[in-house]
Amino acid sequence: MEPIKISFLGGINEVGKNMTCYEYSKSMLIVDCGLAFPESDQLGVDFVIPDFTFVERNQDRLKGIVITHGHEDHIGALCYLLKKVKIPVYATLLTAGLIRGKLSEHKLDYEVDIHIVKAGDTVSIGDFDVEFIHVNHSIPGAVALAIKCDSGTIVQTGDFKIDTSPIDGAIIDLSRFAELGNEGVMCLLSDSTNAEQPGFSQSESKVGETFKNLFNQAGDRRIIIATFASNIHRVQQIIDIAANTGRKVALSGRSLENVVAIASELGYVNIPDGTLISIDEIKKYSDDRLVIITTGSQGEPMSALSRMASGGHRKVSVGYNDCVIISARPIPGNEKTVYRVINDLLKLGANVIYEKMYDVHVSGHACQEELKLMLSLVKPKYFIPVHGEQKHLRYHAKLAESVGIDKNNILIADNGYEISVSDRNISVSGTVASGKVYVDGYGVGDVGARVMKERLHLGQDGIIIVAATIDGASGELLSGPEVVSKGFVYVKEAEFLMNEAVRISMKVIDSFPPYSFDINAMNVKIRDEVSRLMYEKTKRSPMILPILLEV
Amino acid sequence: MEPIKISFLGGINEVGKNMTCYEYSKSMLIVDCGLAFPESDQLGVDFVIPDFTFVERNQDRLKGIVITHGHEDHIGALCYLLKKVKIPVYATLLTAGLIRGKLSEHKLDYEVDIHIVKAGDTVSIGDFDVEFIHVNHSIPGAVALAIKCDSGTIVQTGDFKIDTSPIDGAIIDLSRFAELGNEGVMCLLSDSTNAEQPGFSQSESKVGETFKNLFNQAGDRRIIIATFASNIHRVQQIIDIAANTGRKVALSGRSLENVVAIASELGYVNIPDGTLISIDEIKKYSDDRLVIITTGSQGEPMSALSRMASGGHRKVSVGYNDCVIISARPIPGNEKTVYRVINDLLKLGANVIYEKMYDVHVSGHACQEELKLMLSLVKPKYFIPVHGEQKHLRYHAKLAESVGIDKNNILIADNGYEISVSDRNISVSGTVASGKVYVDGYGVGDVGARVMKERLHLGQDGIIIVAATIDGASGELLSGPEVVSKGFVYVKEAEFLMNEAVRISMKVIDSFPPYSFDINAMNVKIRDEVSRLMYEKTKRSPMILPILLEV
Repeated sequence: MEPIKISFLGGINEVGKNMTCYEYSKSMLIVDCGLAFPESDQLGVDFVIPDFTFVERNQDRLKGIVITHGHEDHIGALCYLLKKVKIPVYATLLTAGLIRGKLSEHKLDYEVDIHIVKAGDTVSIGDFDVEFIHVNHSIPGAVALAIKCDSGTIVQTGDFKIDTSPIDGAIIDLSRFAELGNEGVMCLLSDSTNAEQPGFSQSESKVGETFKNLFNQAGDRRIIIATFASNIHRVQQIIDIAANTGRKVALSGRSLENVVAIASELGYVNIPDGTLISIDEIKKYSDDRLVIITTGSQGEPMSALSRMASGGHRKVSVGYNDCVIISARPIPGNEKTVYRVINDLLKLGANVIYEKMYDVHVSGHACQEELKLMLSLVKPKYFIPVHGEQKHLRYHAKLAESVGIDKNNILIADNGYEISVSDRNISVSGTVASGKVYVDGYGVGDVGARVMKERLHLGQDGIIIVAATIDGASGELLSGPEVVSKGFVYVKEAEFLMNEAVRISMKVIDSFPPYSFDINAMNVKIRDEVSRLMYEKTKRSPMILPILLEV
Repeated sequence: MEPIKISFLGGINEVGKNMTCYEYSKSMLIVDCGLAFPESDQLGVDFVIPDFTFVERNQDRLKGIVITHGHEDHIGALCYLLKKVKIPVYATLLTAGLIRGKLSEHKLDYEVDIHIVKAGDTVSIGDFDVEFIHVNHSIPGAVALAIKCDSGTIVQTGDFKIDTSPIDGAIIDLSRFAELGNEGVMCLLSDSTNAEQPGFSQSESKVGETFKNLFNQAGDRRIIIATFASNIHRVQQIIDIAANTGRKVALSGRSLENVVAIASELGYVNIPDGTLISIDEIKKYSDDRLVIITTGSQGEPMSALSRMASGGHRKVSVGYNDCVIISARPIPGNEKTVYRVINDLLKLGANVIYEKMYDVHVSGHACQEELKLMLSLVKPKYFIPVHGEQKHLRYHAKLAESVGIDKNNILIADNGYEISVSDRNISVSGTVASGKVYVDGYGVGDVGARVMKERLHLGQDGIIIVAATIDGASGELLSGPEVVSKGFVYVKEAEFLMNEAVRISMKVIDSFPPYSFDINAMNVKIRDEVSRLMYEKTKRSPMILPILLEV
């Protein structure tokens, strides 16, 4: 039997940028194409996408891309891929709607072939049959995949949780996972995001109960709720409770308005007539008749909630009569920005409810008991934990061992690994091109490691430019040196230092013999001497950039 | 009765930089002088200290500075203050030892008058009598203060917790707080760090129990424990268990070696003969006979633990036979760096135990029930929550209300507030100079808001320099323009853009009338035109810096 090859272009040893390639016979199939948000040392980067080299090289064998759900870490890089390769996309209705929105922003609307599928469907894609299985997650329309070919079946869960009282009434299709397990699953790839969390995740409906209590307690105050734009079920719950308590709902934040418009058009959200008002209309209603749903639950600096907190929102000014609910948990790395927003809102006098204070948020990812349940139902021969950092993958591997998966049949992968799996064996059989591509403005990949290093240096210590004009023949100084610094010191207080840099640069220029000087050597020497001066006097290492113009 | 004035130079609406000034009659007294670690948008800053202007202006009335304990957020700015004003320092033995270490680094050893006090002492400082009261905290020698003058008594807790089984046997002196409460306390200033945490903090001895179990489980593996250098009691527990289980202890990390040396010399730590070995000696012992205590529990990039994780530690290489215990919780903002270290250690094959996995850390700050106990014992008329962000202060204020303090007698302050408190009234009576002073290398305050803004800009988008030489009389272009970019794009892939910048700059220079040109206007126009070009083509806004040299 020919092995199936699984190659990871992202999502392993990181959170985000999920992208997996399957190869069998003459077919290649991709699952998801997400982005990752930059780390704190990736300065100025908007987001990070996978390196597509491996896919581009295999264009002729590429049969399709399947998307598990509409979150950015699963669809955010898709448009960038579709600019490079022509390939049909398979997704459920809401996921497809969100993808279409992105395609139109990238002016790709008419070029891409999107096949809408639904849970329960099986679609032939090249040598693969792909079955879509309903799962619960913090966005509707999420599916797991059973990827079948002549050598066996691989189950990839996508992001999932087990919600026994979901808002749309449809529990994750556990019986289908059980059937697949009984039919025989060669390999399982499962979501490791919450592998550190013991127990079960809570149901989304728990949040609704909390909201009901908080709406009662709010009395005559205005309610402002920040949540993820794509959490349609949460938005639905807020709208329902608002309608029941005689409050109007206004939306603030572009992504939220977009997602609600798409979800509403596709029937994923049901808004009672007269409940939704424009943010411009809020002044017509008293506080006790208003709920504002807003973006910014992660403290994003330009988001609607951050602008409310800093007093910079043009339509909403927060004060003593506001009750602000942050219906999310800070993603690691965002704690400080979220706390800053909370502190600023409190200073404005608002009552702020956040984090676990009152169960105002539940996770969309399976915790340990759910992960064990999934492993027990699917009973895979081989197991690869995916979607997570090393610590999550390790925890998940231990959980798999604890439910009886043979330790030797568990493989902790990395991005760039090509894994071969057959009925007899799982192993790392090679590597493929993989990496981080930075998107910054219109630029895709034009900011690389070297530019990033320069940004870190500039940001830490600033820059000193030494500009001078030299007689191209004699090497005599004609003008300057002018010394300009940015991000280094407040120049008025460091005049001595700047004058000293001028003096030292002049001395270097003078030290070269007339009519036989090497301008590059002059350049290097100015850099070294000024650098030394600055370190001696300030114990800092600004970037030193001499520019010598020849006349 | 003359009111007592309390002015905050730090520690309110922030974590760190604690510094409080008390004024009564003709005396000024300072409590603590700490530093804060920089926020993520304070690029290149080593740390932040208070603005001392207010203290300098009142030098003639300044009678002394009292230090509650030896943590950086309470002593870290002291040397910078002592360089500006001559003033006696009052501290307990260990605190004084740590301060002396800092003084000698700053070459201030022989200039500063340190008075060593002990819990139970009362010292006259100007018009104040200051009583020192033993408290529990994550460093030995921590004290609360009862600050007494003719108008009444103010209690400032410093950092504290209630530990009923502390390592050194001395429980916080609750009976003295109760006596003071019965005598009558006008105002309480209390530690708000853990005001969000319900219940009681756990005892430091709990960590020892966990360590014992982990040492047993470790078998023949080497044990590496990362903790805060100043947590002497934790170090003591590790040493004791190591000695009992036949392991040698080596220290890695300069701050740890320093603190243990000082604490050992002063009798705060008791090391059985032959237990401590140098890090150079570890190769003489098998793994099952070794414990390494290391710094870096917050993932600090240059720390010993980070170097072990990245394979860059010269003495310790981590592998499958290591059990690494991170005996600390990530401080908000450090989560990602701590997780990165954990992930890297796991990738090296080590077993890593972190966070709450096995109670390997307890907090040094009082939780809600302890804070309520303190409020109930001291029974102050007025209450000011200190040491914390707005959310912590708010929570603490609510706790005070819940134990019966009149809402109108609770004041949430801010840095720069001058508060007047007397038997009849508490109010904000004015403001004093306050602010953040950045320390960067040798520079203290030479990096201000403007330089910081430049660093952020440079770090986000980089810089483009346009340098040219102009005939000073005619305005004719003599040399250049040369366009150099740093931190913007990888130039080889953006040659078109650079050429376009040259072309546009030349056009601008040519557009000015010969012999009557304004070089500043030329400068501004180049900046605007190149800026526009870059934004149009890349949707980014690098800093544009034209330098026009005149010959």
